[in-house]
Amino acid sequence: MTLFRFCNCTLIRNHALVVDDLWIRHGKIIDPEKVFFDERIQADVEYDCRGVLVAPGYIDLQINGAFGHDFSSPDEASEEMLLLVAQKLTAHGVTAFVPTVVSSKPETYKAVLPKYKRRAGSAKDGATILGTHIEGPFIDEKKRGAHRTDFLRKAPNGIEDLLSCYGSFNDVSIITIAPEIPNMIETVIPELVQKYNIVVSVGHSIASLDIGERAVCAGARFITHLFNAMLPFHHRDPGLVGLLTSHRLPTTSIVHYGLIADGIHTHSAAVRLAHRVHPQGLVLVTDAVPALGLPDGTYHMGAEKILVENKRATIAGTQTLCGSIASLAECVQNMRQALLDGEISKHGEVKIDKQFIVECIDAATLHPASVLHIENQKGTLSFGADADFIFLDDKLNVLSTFIAGEQAWTVNDNWSINNLRTKNSSQ
Amino acid sequence: MTLFRFCNCTLIRNHALVVDDLWIRHGKIIDPEKVFFDERIQADVEYDCRGVLVAPGYIDLQINGAFGHDFSSPDEASEEMLLLVAQKLTAHGVTAFVPTVVSSKPETYKAVLPKYKRRAGSAKDGATILGTHIEGPFIDEKKRGAHRTDFLRKAPNGIEDLLSCYGSFNDVSIITIAPEIPNMIETVIPELVQKYNIVVSVGHSIASLDIGERAVCAGARFITHLFNAMLPFHHRDPGLVGLLTSHRLPTTSIVHYGLIADGIHTHSAAVRLAHRVHPQGLVLVTDAVPALGLPDGTYHMGAEKILVENKRATIAGTQTLCGSIASLAECVQNMRQALLDGEISKHGEVKIDKQFIVECIDAATLHPASVLHIENQKGTLSFGADADFIFLDDKLNVLSTFIAGEQAWTVNDNWSINNLRTKNSSQ
Repeated sequence: MTLFRFCNCTLIRNHALVVDDLWIRHGKIIDPEKVFFDERIQADVEYDCRGVLVAPGYIDLQINGAFGHDFSSPDEASEEMLLLVAQKLTAHGVTAFVPTVVSSKPETYKAVLPKYKRRAGSAKDGATILGTHIEGPFIDEKKRGAHRTDFLRKAPNGIEDLLSCYGSFNDVSIITIAPEIPNMIETVIPELVQKYNIVVSVGHSIASLDIGERAVCAGARFITHLFNAMLPFHHRDPGLVGLLTSHRLPTTSIVHYGLIADGIHTHSAAVRLAHRVHPQGLVLVTDAVPALGLPDGTYHMGAEKILVENKRATIAGTQTLCGSIASLAECVQNMRQALLDGEISKHGEVKIDKQFIVECIDAATLHPASVLHIENQKGTLSFGADADFIFLDDKLNVLSTFIAGEQAWTVNDNWSINNLRTKNSSQ
Repeated sequence: MTLFRFCNCTLIRNHALVVDDLWIRHGKIIDPEKVFFDERIQADVEYDCRGVLVAPGYIDLQINGAFGHDFSSPDEASEEMLLLVAQKLTAHGVTAFVPTVVSSKPETYKAVLPKYKRRAGSAKDGATILGTHIEGPFIDEKKRGAHRTDFLRKAPNGIEDLLSCYGSFNDVSIITIAPEIPNMIETVIPELVQKYNIVVSVGHSIASLDIGERAVCAGARFITHLFNAMLPFHHRDPGLVGLLTSHRLPTTSIVHYGLIADGIHTHSAAVRLAHRVHPQGLVLVTDAVPALGLPDGTYHMGAEKILVENKRATIAGTQTLCGSIASLAECVQNMRQALLDGEISKHGEVKIDKQFIVECIDAATLHPASVLHIENQKGTLSFGADADFIFLDDKLNVLSTFIAGEQAWTVNDNWSINNLRTKNSSQ
């Protein structure tokens, strides 16, 4: 089996930037020391990475569509459409994602969900599909955001109502619910988590901190787009945002939270606040609408018409934001800039950019992988993990994307794998 | 001049707990090495502190009254009343404070303010008076809290309106204003700061972050009771709370903010959030009402009747909170508990209580002194500072209070200075 060695690069490994080579065989990152000692062999193929930053591929846990395609549309849903999006996302550094379906009619779920099966990615097929994220319709009308009122539902019969609405829990990875809806904390959350191994996220909710804490104790471990579609942080009832500093949660796992750092949904001061309060839980998500990757104009998402103007996506005819058109790569860059701005303000200079780079990339790689309990396989360059990785320049622009060890995308021919090769003894 | 040595104690010095002796002469903390080398003398009097924690005395920047006395009442205002409060506050570890006057009629300011002159404290006269804090009436009606609507004012003529309302800026240390009121940012704040050397605090305000940033750039450096009487932290406009992570502020000084950690005004999750986001700026204030130190019942403050029940002080007949009845010593204890709870939740155990103790005490000593630019003289046990200090047990209960090197209060005879003396060569 061919042994590949990527030289002359800086890796993100164990929360630090380290100058080291990346060794790959059979689509996995491997430990070169073992190869030397056990097998006494050398790399078959070597590449010169010209000093780039090599990071794990980005993982998006909340993406409603992209490139004109809408994951919530029964007319569009197909394996081919998903494949197309999965391929094009590699141009934004994304190597795995969770297609997200907004609040819809039961027949819509039954039409679209069966098309979005878990599937390993490849250079040819694009990013890995990590199951679906179903956002709603068991959410609170008072914080519905862009979700349609007439689609929202309660669950008087507990999990049966979810099952009859969605049709099946097959290939479902994440469900966003409002924990204040009766039966959620009592039965729905524990059953989703324990019986179906689904990640429960709280959001689109007016829950108090107390209710949020009970939801987490019942098994919820993610917060859907922190700050957005929930009560603002209040000093006497901090609401779901208060989960970031709650002292009444199980100590066995941490709560993660999605953050839309698109420069529109979340003020840079709010990005800094979340990062300072609970950096380990920060997960960058795009919450991207189908217009991601397209020019300004009118598009649709689910049953709603949306308007994109000046990087803002709103429900047509309203001021209601309905998702972002920023790529995950842009969100990483925005977060870094927000942290840098705060650092300059505190010290008059930047002292810790390297640490910030690591933290921003962790927020788009290791942290989302942790939410799905796949942090040993994805979102990391540790030995044994899948060889999904990206090349980044010093501004964190994506230069090239690799999936399962193979090049899936390059920004231009300069970064084509053929032009990086310095040795090829296996030919 | 008698040289005093306090032995067998743990001091808070340079943001750390250090086992060292405290040397005092002429009401000041002195450097013993200089005494040994320059004067070659020994302490005249020595005390055994039995292992207690020795901290700087507490400084309260916002206190509306206490022990039944109301700083905003023209009928009560007198030097004798202020003296009485200053004496009794020593029982709560307070060695300096800023009597605070709520929004009032102009004739009230002219009656009360001349009674509250700056004055050095002593064992006999109690805590030092650090000038007055005038909270209002140039605040926003939409966030007036317990302030009376009919007393609120605008400033069409700029600082002249403040001067004609208050009568004088003599002995005024802090003024709380809403920066969105016209002329505040343009002229009032810069003049108060530059011409009168007054600390401008923003609060009782609906200011956006942008307005808050412009106020700070104009010279404001304090936020009145963070979270209370301002817009909640919103992800698209973080409001005044966003000043804690703003990147558009002068780097020459930091913004401080008052926090009412009385267990009522501010949820412990909010205390932890503020501490994690901007610990250096945290200033514990009591915002105490005249009922501090008294049992439940009906009292008055300014022109309002207030009801105290179960540690909550409200405007009688409403649910509007109007200040706390927690002492500053209790606020320090509450903050420590909030931080400990968060630590236990994160790690399942407490790893950094010592650091928390220092940070909580700094928030009631060094930080308020910094707001008033007297951090070399008060709120510190550094050499050359005033010998205002307190003994604390391991639960941070106050055992004894010293002002200008003399014992002003003890919890019981055990801690009387006469019972701690081990050497007295000056008698």
